[in-house]
Amino acid sequence: MTMSWHTMMEFEPRLVGCVVSNRNFIFNSLKATKECVLNIPTVELAVKVVGCGNTSGRDIDKFKTFGFTPTPASQVRLPLIAECYANLECRVVDARMVAKYNFFTLEVIKAWIDPSRKQPRAIHHKERAVFMVAGKTIRLRSRMK
Amino acid sequence: MTMSWHTMMEFEPRLVGCVVSNRNFIFNSLKATKECVLNIPTVELAVKVVGCGNTSGRDIDKFKTFGFTPTPASQVRLPLIAECYANLECRVVDARMVAKYNFFTLEVIKAWIDPSRKQPRAIHHKERAVFMVAGKTIRLRSRMK
Repeated sequence: MTMSWHTMMEFEPRLVGCVVSNRNFIFNSLKATKECVLNIPTVELAVKVVGCGNTSGRDIDKFKTFGFTPTPASQVRLPLIAECYANLECRVVDARMVAKYNFFTLEVIKAWIDPSRKQPRAIHHKERAVFMVAGKTIRLRSRMK
Repeated sequence: MTMSWHTMMEFEPRLVGCVVSNRNFIFNSLKATKECVLNIPTVELAVKVVGCGNTSGRDIDKFKTFGFTPTPASQVRLPLIAECYANLECRVVDARMVAKYNFFTLEVIKAWIDPSRKQPRAIHHKERAVFMVAGKTIRLRSRMK
């Protein structure tokens, strides 16, 4: 599924919170298995990202339809997507916000990136099929570590 | 305070979740008053954003130090920041994730933007004082409403 609502929640342990609608095909299996992989695409995959958002795993095999290459994960029983810049293997560590908000608290237990990609440009969902493409990076002075 | 960990959680009601560390000066007042304003800056304010993150309201008046102009809100007793592109007046509607994760669930009860700003460029925190500046917008075809 395509997901846009997520946030870091903690560095140690590495927690991510995200909304997975209960209308989504994977909602029940995520609740049951407490495992998922967050696949982070770059702008080259934007058309496929929208395609994944417009279809359901109830009807099609998205890996085949969109030409994604499944790669074995190390900690969970779900595959990574080889074409994605980053893949985060996660376990649900807190489900108390699921019933009311569809909000899952995940711990990232293994993170993968593609080291050959020097300037990955992520996409950030704005509305419908409209995305902001990551722009330039600025570095300011900070007193914080 | 400067905050980087937040996510949309629902369109209706308009919910935002965010992490406010319990080491922050405003943590206790946010818990007590259940009110806040999310001020959304653009890249022109990046140096001040870092300044706000490097200092504490325990020691200084950040409005004065950084030259922000307070403007009355309509639904909460805290001011907006006139220099910010957007200001979201919020109420804490769920605090059950606060004790363990410092995670607040907010309802946006009033939203303000500066209509004179045609191309606001938000900044997205990467690490320390490093930010990604919002890049171009791409519009793809979608079957979703």
